[in-house]
Amino acid sequence: MNIIRIEDPADPRVAPYLSIRERDLVGREGRFVAEGKVVLNVLFAAGRFQAESVLVLENRLAGMTETLALAPDGMPVYVASAAVIDAIAGFHMHRGILAIGSKGVAPSVDDMLAALPERALVAVPVGISNHDNIGSIFRNAAAFGADAVLLDETCCDPLYRKAIRVSVGAALKVPFAVGGTASNLADALSRHGFGQLALSPAGEADIRDMPRPGRLALYFGTEGEGLPEPLLKRLTTARIRMAPGFDSLNVAAASAIALHHFTDATG
Amino acid sequence: MNIIRIEDPADPRVAPYLSIRERDLVGREGRFVAEGKVVLNVLFAAGRFQAESVLVLENRLAGMTETLALAPDGMPVYVASAAVIDAIAGFHMHRGILAIGSKGVAPSVDDMLAALPERALVAVPVGISNHDNIGSIFRNAAAFGADAVLLDETCCDPLYRKAIRVSVGAALKVPFAVGGTASNLADALSRHGFGQLALSPAGEADIRDMPRPGRLALYFGTEGEGLPEPLLKRLTTARIRMAPGFDSLNVAAASAIALHHFTDATG
Repeated sequence: MNIIRIEDPADPRVAPYLSIRERDLVGREGRFVAEGKVVLNVLFAAGRFQAESVLVLENRLAGMTETLALAPDGMPVYVASAAVIDAIAGFHMHRGILAIGSKGVAPSVDDMLAALPERALVAVPVGISNHDNIGSIFRNAAAFGADAVLLDETCCDPLYRKAIRVSVGAALKVPFAVGGTASNLADALSRHGFGQLALSPAGEADIRDMPRPGRLALYFGTEGEGLPEPLLKRLTTARIRMAPGFDSLNVAAASAIALHHFTDATG
Repeated sequence: MNIIRIEDPADPRVAPYLSIRERDLVGREGRFVAEGKVVLNVLFAAGRFQAESVLVLENRLAGMTETLALAPDGMPVYVASAAVIDAIAGFHMHRGILAIGSKGVAPSVDDMLAALPERALVAVPVGISNHDNIGSIFRNAAAFGADAVLLDETCCDPLYRKAIRVSVGAALKVPFAVGGTASNLADALSRHGFGQLALSPAGEADIRDMPRPGRLALYFGTEGEGLPEPLLKRLTTARIRMAPGFDSLNVAAASAIALHHFTDATG
């Protein structure tokens, strides 16, 4: 392990970790921040994104040995005291370990879809601008073995720090691509032979009565507005049965139910 | 409507609304705070808890007419400017409307179970100390028509402000009782003829292969620890199928899937 002791919060080697929260707001020029042991395990094990470095609390280093054993050879592991780390990050970093990763080059929607197997399950969030919801959708996608997530251009960034955290690292594991509009995504999914189902409280049939095509894309809209009307007109719609009088479901819950229903997982 | 104009943040009539966040921490002696139009609609329509008063932004009053029409006769509606309301609440109250309700006398577990129909579905969170998760479990319980929620003594309070908000008011609608330990709850559910299923990643069968008894209780444990080992030994266990390698599901998502699976709702 390439362990490097940091004594000065202004050390240029830890510049990417400076003022974490402020930097969340302005963006990171192609980088993301991953936090906590569980998330870092996924980052290293999935190997989908390149980890540039890790910053760890000195008194947590021993407990991170197994996690760091998964890291790329030679990757710098910066170690510092709590006081130095808090001065770098700008807040008390109780998780004890952070990583900076490189977003790399995002795949095009077509390239990503072309690479999927004959039988594939894809989640398509549309207009989801809440990082908790995006993170939860990725977590559910991973839990139920979805092959990819396709996001329309109005969704928030799955590699935002909080989204990664809520996803428990799934945003670093499940392949995703960001397309244009929902209509552009539907065009692409059609080209690649996907059956497409738009989840909506007013859906024409219960998801439990829907056949599962080999390649299936499931669309999830916002809680308030739902999916765009033109998309609902174009696609087959399906609903999740609910009790009368309180037909309100969080989009993360809806994605859990629909992905669980259509998954091939047998675990 | 009993509309009362408030000019002075120190007016004793709005004392229950003072320093909302600080009061969250110390508790409210038998009261709760409900926020926002959607939650207040549930509070008034369900009629399960008594609303003591409402505090509304003057420029939102007109938009709240339908909501307030559901309120109890004579209930005070305090109206104030944004500056006065922010001074009362201690932060910027962007939701525009708050209510104070009375928790009343909590039913005993036995009384609550005795009052349920022959065919009933009950959610039993155990050790859930996160208000987001408790709120989400209530929201799912309402969405899938669960008849009640039973909480063990280590769960957090469903009538905490944030839990009510996340539940979208379901915590004010779905009957609940707080018992002693999970083992006490299992005793009570047995006495009342409930089939009991403990959700666990290591469950002996897939929930989809489990019969639905007339009276069914579904147990949900914490993400880290899961349900207590003695409870898992005592009850039938069931799992939610997941993909290998990422078998991590949020407890709110698990409750959505299991309640959706066992609901009688056909909507």
